[in-house]
Amino acid sequence: DNKFNIVVLPGDGIGVEVMQACLAALEALQQRVGGFRLAYDHRPGGAQLYADTGVAFPEPSMTACEQADAILFGAMGLPHIRYPDGTEIAPQLDIRTHLELYAGVRPIRALAGVPLALADPRAREIDLVIIREQTEGWFYSRGKADVRGDVEAFDTCRITRKGSERVFDFSFRLAQRRKARNPAKGKVTCVDKANVFASMAFSNRIFRERAERFPDIAADHCYIDAMALNLLRKPWEYDVVPTENQFGDILSDLGAGLIGGMGMAPSGDLGDKHALFQPSHGSAPDIAGQGKANPTAMLLSAAMMLEWLGERHDLRACTDAADVLQGAVDGVFARSSVRPWEFGGTDGTKEITAAVIDAIRH
Amino acid sequence: DNKFNIVVLPGDGIGVEVMQACLAALEALQQRVGGFRLAYDHRPGGAQLYADTGVAFPEPSMTACEQADAILFGAMGLPHIRYPDGTEIAPQLDIRTHLELYAGVRPIRALAGVPLALADPRAREIDLVIIREQTEGWFYSRGKADVRGDVEAFDTCRITRKGSERVFDFSFRLAQRRKARNPAKGKVTCVDKANVFASMAFSNRIFRERAERFPDIAADHCYIDAMALNLLRKPWEYDVVPTENQFGDILSDLGAGLIGGMGMAPSGDLGDKHALFQPSHGSAPDIAGQGKANPTAMLLSAAMMLEWLGERHDLRACTDAADVLQGAVDGVFARSSVRPWEFGGTDGTKEITAAVIDAIRH
Ligand SMILES: CC(C)[C@H](C(=O)O)[C@@H](O)C(=O)O
Ligand SMILES: CC(C)[C@H](C(=O)O)[C@@H](O)C(=O)O
Repeated sequence: DNKFNIVVLPGDGIGVEVMQACLAALEALQQRVGGFRLAYDHRPGGAQLYADTGVAFPEPSMTACEQADAILFGAMGLPHIRYPDGTEIAPQLDIRTHLELYAGVRPIRALAGVPLALADPRAREIDLVIIREQTEGWFYSRGKADVRGDVEAFDTCRITRKGSERVFDFSFRLAQRRKARNPAKGKVTCVDKANVFASMAFSNRIFRERAERFPDIAADHCYIDAMALNLLRKPWEYDVVPTENQFGDILSDLGAGLIGGMGMAPSGDLGDKHALFQPSHGSAPDIAGQGKANPTAMLLSAAMMLEWLGERHDLRACTDAADVLQGAVDGVFARSSVRPWEFGGTDGTKEITAAVIDAIRH
Repeated sequence: DNKFNIVVLPGDGIGVEVMQACLAALEALQQRVGGFRLAYDHRPGGAQLYADTGVAFPEPSMTACEQADAILFGAMGLPHIRYPDGTEIAPQLDIRTHLELYAGVRPIRALAGVPLALADPRAREIDLVIIREQTEGWFYSRGKADVRGDVEAFDTCRITRKGSERVFDFSFRLAQRRKARNPAKGKVTCVDKANVFASMAFSNRIFRERAERFPDIAADHCYIDAMALNLLRKPWEYDVVPTENQFGDILSDLGAGLIGGMGMAPSGDLGDKHALFQPSHGSAPDIAGQGKANPTAMLLSAAMMLEWLGERHDLRACTDAADVLQGAVDGVFARSSVRPWEFGGTDGTKEITAAVIDAIRH
């Protein structure tokens, strides 16, 4: 019946504010496009909840996620609230593992009208996607570390054949879809440190193996250190970039820095059965409650959700809605209708959301 | 008698070419400054040697390093020559471990006249130093990985109290020296992922502990992902930046990208007893033998060696020579006397070396 059950997790800090903006835009979008309906299931979770109740992400919230058609996530975590071992409250990591959201899809796309970090004018052409593996790698160690008194501590990186195959196959299929839309695309660049770590020499072998199944897509490779440099030198040359969990965490922030910062960078955490969509930024307690939060990353994440629903359910209405939403955001910046705080402007959550909703309606 | 025994390891590819340039510049420098003498002990090592003999770094080369006053290193490693497990020939890693060169000192300084990556004009003020811990962290795993058939592979990160204390103390002392020369400096920013990894929550505690011994220096902290972003947003705000081995590998390449690339980025691998100096770039087989290699990073590394020798032996002549060499390099770029290939010019190893030698003489 084209009705989707969307679990909404606003979380902490500005997560709440950008989520409100997002739901308002989705409302306008459903009026404009039609042909599908989103029903929301609001659920608690986050660092403040942990401080208040001792539980960061209650069972019923996780169960709701399991049953959802898709999940919208604001931000969770606060710098001063931590688990007893000193690590941060980050239910997003638990959800990624629990729902096997193995592909952290983090598009890095330069929008017209947004001030960019690089001096080179080709930076306007930046259009790549970091694929962060999210179920293993270094993050496998979370909660499993071996701390030996006050002397030493060990963490463990685990890379499996299964985990590698699925994230590389996902990357090649994404490259095929991107190439179908833009013939200049169609390249997958595997980023690792296979020259030093045997676990990465292992995944690198699997990458080359899987690449042979996708002869229409160029298979490329780059070491993580060189990639950090290349994202400054020639980011416009990349397309789809799968990498290990921790490396993807670093490269996606670096990528966001290229296109205007975390407020402009959406993301989707995709698995074979479930998917969660969230802005790349965190809860930003320093600006929370002031109306300054830029909702763009959240809005673009919602567009990714609609695209994913459209593909998965073969529903044109959702795909169209995704296009309208992304087009509205792009247009607002291209026409310089808004200038967010972080770019020296005075437009906050309300102004930017209003401009996008206006663009959706017209 | 102010005579220093310098082990010279040209290595592979352009390592040989930039080393030759470096020795010519050091010759001119000794004529100009006087008061110290460098005696060279040339030793073999590298990927080509491994291909030819089955040994990448012969015992006598390592023994010579143990006995040297300092080591000059060109570049080692070639993409197509590898150990049987698929990892690269990298004797520099063995030397770092064997001689306990725990502090990988990687200055990121914007030279006048060099084209920079960032659009923001404040990028001209970039002057920070990445301190890469080099004896443990994720690189602890090199040669110790646990590969279980074709199913999964594990690498291990080890962080010790001893390793953390010495690299943080080194960083605070360096910040003190930098503050003495420039009162705007005097900050140490510890970069880690203490919110996820217990080994890093462990080293983070040690950082805060050691910071109390240096009340004149500001102790700052940043997560690795946020740091990748901040190096694009506000690199001019940082001073000394200690971090884990793999993180330092990534951040120093990113930093090099900010100031003109690997050809402009020197480094020193320092321990309590030994020290090795090398350009940040690798052997670059694609341009080897063509005279295109930029010797600047190697020349600035030699200046770091002279500064280190001067401090360690309390020898003014060496410190002066370091200043003359760095001043000569800075001057050549500030006056736009040369334009290396990677900046769209036609000046290679010979031209740049000649210009620097000319500046040393006048
Ligand atoms: C909050 C933090 C633990 C998280 C991560 O490192 O995965 C965040 O940086 C991200 O990128 O989603
Ligand atoms: C060659 C490689 C193994 C080495 C490293 O990763 O340490 C290099 O990138 C470096 O930064 O010195």
